[in-house]
Amino acid sequence: MPSKTKGINAERELIHLFWQTNEWAACRIAGSGSSQYPSADILASNTKRNLAIEAKLTKDSSKYFSYEEIAQLKEFASKFGAEPWIAVKFKGENWKFLCLEDLQQTSNNFAINQDLAKTKGLGFDELIKEI
Amino acid sequence: MPSKTKGINAERELIHLFWQTNEWAACRIAGSGSSQYPSADILASNTKRNLAIEAKLTKDSSKYFSYEEIAQLKEFASKFGAEPWIAVKFKGENWKFLCLEDLQQTSNNFAINQDLAKTKGLGFDELIKEI
Repeated sequence: MPSKTKGINAERELIHLFWQTNEWAACRIAGSGSSQYPSADILASNTKRNLAIEAKLTKDSSKYFSYEEIAQLKEFASKFGAEPWIAVKFKGENWKFLCLEDLQQTSNNFAINQDLAKTKGLGFDELIKEI
Repeated sequence: MPSKTKGINAERELIHLFWQTNEWAACRIAGSGSSQYPSADILASNTKRNLAIEAKLTKDSSKYFSYEEIAQLKEFASKFGAEPWIAVKFKGENWKFLCLEDLQQTSNNFAINQDLAKTKGLGFDELIKEI
């Protein structure tokens, strides 16, 4: 399966998780990554909280995000009154959700490895719990 | 140009209008009309108001919306804490924005004709004015 299709399927999996709660709704954003405007992969809402999510699937043990990518996610989230989140799914693991402060900053990008995802990441149920 | 491409270009035109204000952000929703979940074509926000928009371009003098289509837009908007709006662009005219109460209900659908769009529709500047 081409990696773009895998990515879209992974995003759809997240969309299902939100709708199945009956309290949350979610949608995939078209052209994320190619639009001239800041974007995210997914927007979710329960009317009280809005989440702007960048979702990544990986077979590797670390996933990297450029400064530009994170800046765009932040700007998009702020314009929509949404919380910016990173969703990452390592092979054989469940989705983990990290806030931007928990990403590991390197000299030229941001990184999440499997350990960081396990120690700092929230599971889906924790993400949507009332805070 | 295929009508799907024309539709996407029309949605992009609306997205530009929102971003150009510097106060509003907007995004196109992927798979609207084909997703198994309620959806809209566009979500826009200035953090105080969220708008869920179904956008239609037409060469005809009337545009029709099925009951199902309107019900889905309503449900999506309510889940996102957004106002549901119809954006319609008749050939040679500017975008007009109508709230659902202003659509004309027929025996088996909802309709907007050019007269209705002119008398009841808001221009873009009126739509985003503080209310």
